[in-house]
Amino acid sequence: MATGVWLAGGRGSVAVTSIVGASAIRAGLADPTGCVTELPQLRSPALPTIGDLVFGGHDPASTRLCKKAEALAAAGVLPARLVEALREELATVEPEIRPVPVAATQLETATLIAEDIAAFRFRHSLDRVVVVNVSSTEPAPAPHPAHADADVLRQALAEPGVVLPPSSLYAYAAFLSGCSYIDFTPSTGARLPALDALAHRHAVPYAGHDGKTGETLVKSVLAPMFAMRNLRVRTWSGTNLLGGGDGANLADPGANAAKSTSKQRVLGETLGYEPQGNTRIEYVDDIGDFKTAWDLITFSGFLGTSMRMEFTWHGCDSALAAPLVLDLARLTAAAHKCGRSGPLSELAFFFKDPLGTVPHALAEQWALLASFVRGLGDA
Amino acid sequence: MATGVWLAGGRGSVAVTSIVGASAIRAGLADPTGCVTELPQLRSPALPTIGDLVFGGHDPASTRLCKKAEALAAAGVLPARLVEALREELATVEPEIRPVPVAATQLETATLIAEDIAAFRFRHSLDRVVVVNVSSTEPAPAPHPAHADADVLRQALAEPGVVLPPSSLYAYAAFLSGCSYIDFTPSTGARLPALDALAHRHAVPYAGHDGKTGETLVKSVLAPMFAMRNLRVRTWSGTNLLGGGDGANLADPGANAAKSTSKQRVLGETLGYEPQGNTRIEYVDDIGDFKTAWDLITFSGFLGTSMRMEFTWHGCDSALAAPLVLDLARLTAAAHKCGRSGPLSELAFFFKDPLGTVPHALAEQWALLASFVRGLGDA
Amino acid sequence: MATGVWLAGGRGSVAVTSIVGASAIRAGLADPTGCVTELPQLRSPALPTIGDLVFGGHDPASTRLCKKAEALAAAGVLPARLVEALREELATVEPEIRPVPVAATQLETATLIAEDIAAFRFRHSLDRVVVVNVSSTEPAPAPHPAHADADVLRQALAEPGVVLPPSSLYAYAAFLSGCSYIDFTPSTGARLPALDALAHRHAVPYAGHDGKTGETLVKSVLAPMFAMRNLRVRTWSGTNLLGGGDGANLADPGANAAKSTSKQRVLGETLGYEPQGNTRIEYVDDIGDFKTAWDLITFSGFLGTSMRMEFTWHGCDSALAAPLVLDLARLTAAAHKCGRSGPLSELAFFFKDPLGTVPHALAEQWALLASFVRGLGDA
Amino acid sequence: MATGVWLAGGRGSVAVTSIVGASAIRAGLADPTGCVTELPQLRSPALPTIGDLVFGGHDPASTRLCKKAEALAAAGVLPARLVEALREELATVEPEIRPVPVAATQLETATLIAEDIAAFRFRHSLDRVVVVNVSSTEPAPAPHPAHADADVLRQALAEPGVVLPPSSLYAYAAFLSGCSYIDFTPSTGARLPALDALAHRHAVPYAGHDGKTGETLVKSVLAPMFAMRNLRVRTWSGTNLLGGGDGANLADPGANAAKSTSKQRVLGETLGYEPQGNTRIEYVDDIGDFKTAWDLITFSGFLGTSMRMEFTWHGCDSALAAPLVLDLARLTAAAHKCGRSGPLSELAFFFKDPLGTVPHALAEQWALLASFVRGLGDA
Ligand SMILES: NC(=O)c1ccc[n+]([C@@H]2O[C@H](COP(=O)([O-])OP(=O)(O)OC[C@H]3O[C@@H](n4cnc5c(N)ncnc54)[C@H](O)[C@@H]3O)[C@@H](O)[C@H]2O)c1
Ligand SMILES: NC(=O)c1ccc[n+]([C@@H]2O[C@H](COP(=O)([O-])OP(=O)(O)OC[C@H]3O[C@@H](n4cnc5c(N)ncnc54)[C@H](O)[C@@H]3O)[C@@H](O)[C@H]2O)c1
Ligand SMILES: NC(=O)c1ccc[n+]([C@@H]2O[C@H](COP(=O)([O-])OP(=O)(O)OC[C@H]3O[C@@H](n4cnc5c(N)ncnc54)[C@H](O)[C@@H]3O)[C@@H](O)[C@H]2O)c1
Ligand SMILES: NC(=O)c1ccc[n+]([C@@H]2O[C@H](COP(=O)([O-])OP(=O)(O)OC[C@H]3O[C@@H](n4cnc5c(N)ncnc54)[C@H](O)[C@@H]3O)[C@@H](O)[C@H]2O)c1
Ligand code: NA
Ligand code: NA
Repeated sequence: MATGVWLAGGRGSVAVTSIVGASAIRAGLADPTGCVTELPQLRSPALPTIGDLVFGGHDPASTRLCKKAEALAAAGVLPARLVEALREELATVEPEIRPVPVAATQLETATLIAEDIAAFRFRHSLDRVVVVNVSSTEPAPAPHPAHADADVLRQALAEPGVVLPPSSLYAYAAFLSGCSYIDFTPSTGARLPALDALAHRHAVPYAGHDGKTGETLVKSVLAPMFAMRNLRVRTWSGTNLLGGGDGANLADPGANAAKSTSKQRVLGETLGYEPQGNTRIEYVDDIGDFKTAWDLITFSGFLGTSMRMEFTWHGCDSALAAPLVLDLARLTAAAHKCGRSGPLSELAFFFKDPLGTVPHALAEQWALLASFVRGLGDA
Repeated sequence: MATGVWLAGGRGSVAVTSIVGASAIRAGLADPTGCVTELPQLRSPALPTIGDLVFGGHDPASTRLCKKAEALAAAGVLPARLVEALREELATVEPEIRPVPVAATQLETATLIAEDIAAFRFRHSLDRVVVVNVSSTEPAPAPHPAHADADVLRQALAEPGVVLPPSSLYAYAAFLSGCSYIDFTPSTGARLPALDALAHRHAVPYAGHDGKTGETLVKSVLAPMFAMRNLRVRTWSGTNLLGGGDGANLADPGANAAKSTSKQRVLGETLGYEPQGNTRIEYVDDIGDFKTAWDLITFSGFLGTSMRMEFTWHGCDSALAAPLVLDLARLTAAAHKCGRSGPLSELAFFFKDPLGTVPHALAEQWALLASFVRGLGDA
Repeated sequence: MATGVWLAGGRGSVAVTSIVGASAIRAGLADPTGCVTELPQLRSPALPTIGDLVFGGHDPASTRLCKKAEALAAAGVLPARLVEALREELATVEPEIRPVPVAATQLETATLIAEDIAAFRFRHSLDRVVVVNVSSTEPAPAPHPAHADADVLRQALAEPGVVLPPSSLYAYAAFLSGCSYIDFTPSTGARLPALDALAHRHAVPYAGHDGKTGETLVKSVLAPMFAMRNLRVRTWSGTNLLGGGDGANLADPGANAAKSTSKQRVLGETLGYEPQGNTRIEYVDDIGDFKTAWDLITFSGFLGTSMRMEFTWHGCDSALAAPLVLDLARLTAAAHKCGRSGPLSELAFFFKDPLGTVPHALAEQWALLASFVRGLGDA
Repeated sequence: MATGVWLAGGRGSVAVTSIVGASAIRAGLADPTGCVTELPQLRSPALPTIGDLVFGGHDPASTRLCKKAEALAAAGVLPARLVEALREELATVEPEIRPVPVAATQLETATLIAEDIAAFRFRHSLDRVVVVNVSSTEPAPAPHPAHADADVLRQALAEPGVVLPPSSLYAYAAFLSGCSYIDFTPSTGARLPALDALAHRHAVPYAGHDGKTGETLVKSVLAPMFAMRNLRVRTWSGTNLLGGGDGANLADPGANAAKSTSKQRVLGETLGYEPQGNTRIEYVDDIGDFKTAWDLITFSGFLGTSMRMEFTWHGCDSALAAPLVLDLARLTAAAHKCGRSGPLSELAFFFKDPLGTVPHALAEQWALLASFVRGLGDA
């Protein structure tokens, strides 16, 4: 089941880690640690294998994949020996990561995006293609009436000017090309009524938002713990120190705000109330690709006794994200094949800010995911 | 549904916090924070109310309850105003916490224990009595052939000498008196074939072992998180600093070993393998009733990348334990009423070292508990 | 040597903790833990004793001292038994904490402040009075030409309008009254050329700025440790979570900025370069008077190896500040008696943002302080 | 000033890191980060340069230096590019690290050790040789009457049987050969009256014990901070998780005890009393050469308020130790040249368990060291 994975942001850290990792697993050079669809409970013949995945994408950057992979190795994200061993593989993917098309109107740009994807599909005789947004986080776009209606949207895109942020334009191009779409970032992506209508019209599924890889993952098990024990969380305050490409971008207040909101949502949803405290993101160049998050939680128990917990999470964001990108591509492709269209809220397990009215507690999200996988049948 | 709660260790921290707390809630002076059977999802008319609970017990110590309560208030475990307000209530319970009977044989001692419980039941016209062991942790007892068979056990108890540790003798007395039994400690309690047989013979249920209140509680959600994400935990090393009565006792290597084993079990059970690292307990008088636990977890993710997490838990053990003692008493009494006998493995949610073959992940234990409560019906 | 301590902010947490503490020590109800001038190495007959201190002050708030003390006891800052025992003492000080005078010009306000101080001095036959600013942190004032010259300043103050921020107006009134002045806050205080000139003209000493009580204290020993070991600090990022009166005020961006700058200064000064990272302050009401600070330090060692350290400081700010207020009052009064005037840079040990060109490493500041005390002679 | 550094334990992590580092610095491939004698305040022409150092030693292990260096690079202790670049240099040192001699009596063994050192000295025309013990930590030896007297010792060594532990036999051989001696480990080394007498008799200096590289370094600045602020430390409890060769050895209870005692000494010495709490060492293979230490400190301040601090130190032990080995070799050689003999207590700055009656506060040790360096003159 040859499946294309078209990466918006294909030369970024998450993208390149995903490409190297999939190649390494296919070549038998690495285990699929971190890939949840490789767990016995979730393995399914309905999914394309990791070896079935073929990569392409768009990125305005021109850094060669092998250079980026070497940089990731130097930063401790990838083992240097893998980068060495997969040099040829990377050279094969190299031409598939193309510059971002630019045209006079957004409609023309979307058409060029769609053409690139179509050519990729044809070149590799792919059964289907999943477009995955792993590009830099965008600020929230200005509201626009065309966001509400698919036909109005098409007209507006045909005019000069910016109607959709890039993440949404990728979704537009994906849906028009009959491709499913995953937003791994906190950007807008497919979260507009007009795009949702298009996904249904073209019978393709989509998933999102914002891969859950660190502090929020921990929150999604600790907050339910406090809830299940009827303990009252009073403060939950988090500090995230991060470097790397994504860190620099998040230093931008607009992008930062989108991310911080994603990160606190799990608390209100699983506790049923909003504790005091915020989540902060600080960019520290020296931290590099390994993020350090520190959270302080104060809570009161029986008869009001004050207690506290703190944790430090020291994780490599790209290494946490990449296996989930592979999982999501496999799951979304399989759902597409099964005839699912519209939002895949059953994939909430993977996201900080999931689509639909879904549980935020990790264990419940896991149960939802497991039954989703079972529902995909035996292929 | 007047329900007796007979506390072995009735003058200890957990016991007195439970008594004060139940009185405060009944008097409308405090909320039932920390009581899980008060959560909307678990509330049930099948359970006796907190106001239905009547307390008695055994303890070799002679500290008066109000003195102990004042000491707990000075240590920050109880609000001083509650202790002040409940002075009269405590004076009422005072004579119900009796000295531990001593006799020539363990059989005679058990008979005296049973007599104390029977008198208590009669005095308060109780529907049933739950015996709860919250006494000091014992070292593991020497194996004895009488542990395997109820009839051999009876004969052995009639001889001079020690056949059963105190926790098990309380279970013996409880079962012979038609009372259910809960072991909140890591001691042996009802975990002997002979005692299990007696519980079935006398048609009473029992529960245990070792209330899950701090570091292990956190482990029971974090370990499943790593498992669900297919991340490989390499090290899990824990340090527990604690003072208070229980801390002093746990400084004893025998008791300490029992506790440390309870504490690591959740890892093997939820991860499917044993990571490196141990759990240590250090007694530090100054720490008092607020325990500090520090855990370091190292794990590897995609392509072997090393990552780490650490947490510090700063909890008041008695304040965490007492509401669970109330929950357990209510649940076990209701199960008894419903005709359940033998081990209540559905109460695994409450214990570090649960009975039976049960999940160790908190969310699964919660689901088990919720269905157990539903199964109790509408009383 | 009866010494007046006139507290600007006399009803605040630091002030009331200082008053209660001094009274408790005088009454033999408490040890002078936290008072550095009670250490054998710094004890000196040249200093007024703690018992010699008499308290008065200004505050716009009208909360009674005993109410404030009770609130501090409820928050765990003061032992309730001390507040109970010192009720009468506090009633004696009560009328000495007066409302902040308001007049048509700042010169008139300063005159009213001076009159209050003079009356206090007369009432208690005080040898001298030290004015200590422990009022809320102010935003930095707008620059004004009158700040540069004492005579221009006098003229400007006589006009309507605001020339000096409150902290500086207290310094002005102090100097004109022949009183020494201490700024325990990051506000401007005496740090203006015009005020410095006045201190010299009136032959009075002054000290400041910003009591060093928590995270910065730790920095002042850790940063020199890295420097002495020739280790390269790359990142030093701090998060401070605090509640209480001061916390609420620091949530104001202006005040916050002043404080954060004070807090990072020690790094540049002791390391010789500025590592990456910032210090953040977040107000969290539930944290109350116990501040939690978390700092992450990354550094590189031999051959560039990356290492890291993190610490959590959980301190009661008022309990850390109050004994230093007593120390500073005693030291400044003694310096005044000895004929010192102008900035007392030898008191750098006590401050985040010390006056003059002084060491920022705590051990060097200690040596400076010890020789200063020796220089005060035998009274 | 060609200076030999004879490493007992010359194939261990600390030794090889020292050799690679000195070579890298000499070759201009690395900065002397971590070397304190390269700080402007301590630089002195009286010291041999890092380039003057020539390495040799003894080790029972036969791992080749370049293999060990590669292993250290894989573990993140050394940069792989340095190991690559210094391959030839390491090959030159290779034959200088010789097997540990074995003979019928300890006197004969010492003679063989001395012969190896003499040949090394001759081969490289060295001005002098410093013997540095960086071999595995030994358990404390059984007391022996010969330890008290140099002449009795010589006789006893001539008999079969074990009189001295290896570390002390190296000191014996060093002194008899006119070499100075440094014990970087907690082993006995030169700390026996008989050996001290010999050092004086042969006019050679010695230094020790136990390089201060991690948790104890931090203690040596934090404990004085609490003391200088008159804060009462109540608990200081430490946990050290370490892997690597030294970690495995320290899992041995005997060696562990020696190390733990060294580690707590600084507290009693700088605070003037012993707080509660212990220091624990746990061996965790996965931790490797990067040690994680966690310390909890509880303290009380003004009016008894309880506060707390915790820190986590995540350091690479060998990278912290190696530059100090270079510093110590240079300082001890210079002292030798200047005519110093017996214990060099002025080098306390470098050790957990320093010789003589010396300060344990780092800043005072630094002052002592600085004046020592000045005392060495201008060479
Ligand atoms: N790594 C994680 O754990 C994680 C978790 C959740 C979300 N995310 C999100 O994933 C995204 C990628 O993270 P990263 O660490 O790889 O960042 P990165 O900065 O390394 O990569 C982003 C890439 O997107 C490219 N790009 C920018 N604008 C583009 C456009 N219009 N079209 C196509 N490509 C464009 C950039 O050139 C860059 O190569 C970010 O938005 C991040 O917030 C990451
Ligand atoms: N507090 C928690 O979070 C928690 C969690 C799990 C388990 N536990 C267990 O609960 C038990 C009680 O803890 P605690 O903090 O109240 O301890 P505690 O020391 O305050 O109280 C124990 C009481 O048991 C009494 N006792 C001793 N031997 C007895 C006997 N033979 N019969 C009757 N009473 C006896 C003691 O006199 C004492 O009053 C301990 O075994 C502890 O390990 C507590
Ligand atoms: N507690 C510490 O560790 C510490 C350390 C360094 C500096 N400080 C500084 O000390 C000051 C006091 O801290 P706190 O915790 O007591 O705060 P607080 O809010 O409890 O007290 C401040 C008091 O100042 C009064 N005030 C406000 N404006 C005033 C004015 N114009 N004149 C006189 N009084 C006025 C307020 O009414 C209040 O009672 C703050 O500026 C704080 O930044 C405190
Ligand atoms: N790394 C640090 O931060 C640090 C700090 C203080 C003390 N130390 C001490 O330094 C020593 C070395 O540490 P390491 O990490 O290099 O350990 P390591 O285990 O890597 O090296 C020790 C070496 O000593 C050798 N050896 C054993 N017995 C010997 C003998 N009788 N003669 C000569 N060599 C012998 C071993 O074969 C091994 O090669 C240890 O004693 C350690 O406790 C290290
Ligand atoms: Na930590
Ligand atoms: Na911590």
